[in-house]
Amino acid sequence: MTAQQDCLAMDAQDPLRELRELFALPDGVIYLDGNSLGPLPRHTGERLARVVREEWGEGLIRSWNSAGWFALPQRVGDRIATLVGARAGEVVATDSTSINLFKVLSAALSIAQEDAPARRTVLSERSNFPTDLYIAEALCRERGFTLRLVDAADLAAVLDADTAVLMLTHVNYRTGAMHDMAAVTQAAHAAGALAVWDLAHSAGAVEVDLHAAGADFAVGCGYKYLNGGPGAPAFAWVHPRHVDRCWQPLAGWWGHAEPFAFTPGYRPAAGSARYLCGTQPVLSLVALDCGLDTVLAAQPLGGMPALRRKSLALTDLFIALVEERCAGHGLGLATPREHEQRGSQVCLTRDEGAYAIVQALIARGVVGDFRAGPPDILRFGCAPLYLRFADVWNAVDQLRTVLESGEWRRAEFNRKQAVT
Amino acid sequence: MTAQQDCLAMDAQDPLRELRELFALPDGVIYLDGNSLGPLPRHTGERLARVVREEWGEGLIRSWNSAGWFALPQRVGDRIATLVGARAGEVVATDSTSINLFKVLSAALSIAQEDAPARRTVLSERSNFPTDLYIAEALCRERGFTLRLVDAADLAAVLDADTAVLMLTHVNYRTGAMHDMAAVTQAAHAAGALAVWDLAHSAGAVEVDLHAAGADFAVGCGYKYLNGGPGAPAFAWVHPRHVDRCWQPLAGWWGHAEPFAFTPGYRPAAGSARYLCGTQPVLSLVALDCGLDTVLAAQPLGGMPALRRKSLALTDLFIALVEERCAGHGLGLATPREHEQRGSQVCLTRDEGAYAIVQALIARGVVGDFRAGPPDILRFGCAPLYLRFADVWNAVDQLRTVLESGEWRRAEFNRKQAVT
Repeated sequence: MTAQQDCLAMDAQDPLRELRELFALPDGVIYLDGNSLGPLPRHTGERLARVVREEWGEGLIRSWNSAGWFALPQRVGDRIATLVGARAGEVVATDSTSINLFKVLSAALSIAQEDAPARRTVLSERSNFPTDLYIAEALCRERGFTLRLVDAADLAAVLDADTAVLMLTHVNYRTGAMHDMAAVTQAAHAAGALAVWDLAHSAGAVEVDLHAAGADFAVGCGYKYLNGGPGAPAFAWVHPRHVDRCWQPLAGWWGHAEPFAFTPGYRPAAGSARYLCGTQPVLSLVALDCGLDTVLAAQPLGGMPALRRKSLALTDLFIALVEERCAGHGLGLATPREHEQRGSQVCLTRDEGAYAIVQALIARGVVGDFRAGPPDILRFGCAPLYLRFADVWNAVDQLRTVLESGEWRRAEFNRKQAVT
Repeated sequence: MTAQQDCLAMDAQDPLRELRELFALPDGVIYLDGNSLGPLPRHTGERLARVVREEWGEGLIRSWNSAGWFALPQRVGDRIATLVGARAGEVVATDSTSINLFKVLSAALSIAQEDAPARRTVLSERSNFPTDLYIAEALCRERGFTLRLVDAADLAAVLDADTAVLMLTHVNYRTGAMHDMAAVTQAAHAAGALAVWDLAHSAGAVEVDLHAAGADFAVGCGYKYLNGGPGAPAFAWVHPRHVDRCWQPLAGWWGHAEPFAFTPGYRPAAGSARYLCGTQPVLSLVALDCGLDTVLAAQPLGGMPALRRKSLALTDLFIALVEERCAGHGLGLATPREHEQRGSQVCLTRDEGAYAIVQALIARGVVGDFRAGPPDILRFGCAPLYLRFADVWNAVDQLRTVLESGEWRRAEFNRKQAVT
């Protein structure tokens, strides 16, 4: 049995413990939803205020050059690159994950069409994050491809001579299950398909090496583990072997080779800049830059490998405590036990009351979230930058109290009354 | 001759004079570039700080509901609607102008393809803002349409049985020339084409009535006359007769009928919500909302008609002063003299030195901008919310000094030396 005392000792020995101080976390809250919206870094407010007052207010239009606003997508992108195994100049921070997926999937289809015109299928996982599937569905409709959805276990078997693109999210949003990016990419390539990865639940949470994996395209999210704030700009990455091969259809002026030549014909910029489209939301990009400060503050303490070690220790602890202290309450484990198959979250299943249990926990200051099933999921994100081992102990302790007291049944009853 | 004294008297009698106090304008600057980046409203910093500290920092993930973040695109969109003759629920504030143009032009092409499949041309103006042309070019390429560019004067003559969509920017960015939206839309409809309008230099600057004009689609910009901050989200409008007829291809989860049902198949929301795609940059949307506060503060003082009256008085004054006080210096007028053909800017031409003159003016605190030609353009935006008649007098006085002293020739010389 793990005691609360053991957890406090783990915190005392945690080489990353000081990083928690970078965040303005509210008192009385154990935040297990950083995989949905990362918390506020302490310095974001001040930096934003300065940008608003000095760069916008005083500098006005001149700040596009003097304050480096034009270069923000690349400058922020370069910092993200260091977290996902990309090189400087390859990543742009821009737009939303959905829109970036549209761009890179369009490009992937164009390349596939040129290199292997007989291939007409985009393959993905049925339980991929829905917006990825929607974007793929709409694009397939436009371009005459078929979107084929299968269970994760069947992916390898159905990769075939008709597969143009394999499009996957690295870490599943519902279960926290993680694909082996290198092995899956290799399988895709062996079958003659391109591999497009969504790193929404990976960037800043698990080690990613896009080049080592041989990935073709990737997108990711700025407001989860990168702590960039609500709706922070997302990012896009294209392997250098593809980047200059085709246009992406959102051919706006920021992606033009000479945006200020104002020539009537589109000529895409060399490199990742052609994955930009229109003018970017500077204030939101600045907040994302501050979020990256928090992740990059781990660099001198071991960087992503150290964050990953702590993340696994946190999720191991969470699982062990649930099994030790909440046994007999009908909870199942949706997240893989194997480290190499696990992202940075713990997802529990329960046949009944999952929503109400999550609500009861939130009322007690333990903020996780609920994902409707089947199976219904209680989802707990374990962000290693700011979560303490003692927080995990306390969170599971609250979960046990909620389950034992049955207080969630009242919440469930109230919810059903409200719905009827 | 108009005297400085006359301008001061005009300011004293200006019913909108108090609105200038809403902005944090830097001392010693006459800002004539609000058509490129609107200035900072005084209250934006404080509102943003509160959203960051309380809604993000304290509320965390709960603020998507409790602080109304999910509804921001519609709530901000409804406020924009009042400025452009649209109705509540019809406008969404989201993404960039380029991306929104991609959405609405895609939809327009889909509708044209269904209603009039023989029509294969998108018609626009050669001097339209380049990003609009790039987006149209890329879309035409994807969808098998031809983009045809002509001079504004020839538009009516070339609208024909092959025109699927007429896509125009209401107020030209280089010259300030304004189309008669109702007449041009009517001509497009009479020829069997749909009309797509870009309101980048119109919203908040001139009176627009999309419904009265019978327009089909529109997009616009948040960071010019709406004062939403650098790269503020843009907006999209679709006439109710079209809005539910087709998907737009950026089919992300925010445009889904039930975004939180997490169903694998895309089903577009009814109405303008289907023109949303991914998660929106909340901080930038909040700043846009603050920018709209400044424009809507004119409502009790006469609203857009009052702003338009002042704008025309400012540009009339600017033109008159240039002609009275800068005669013989080789300046030409690119902006139409006729009120009904003029936006909210004054654009001057000069065969030589336009860039250097603009730089010399900026050095003297008169911030306009330069647009390369031919003909080269000195562009002066006259935003009626904060520009005073005395500012126009002083700006032209500085222009006269720069021209008479010949100081711009030294700047021009330095520039040429630097380039060589």
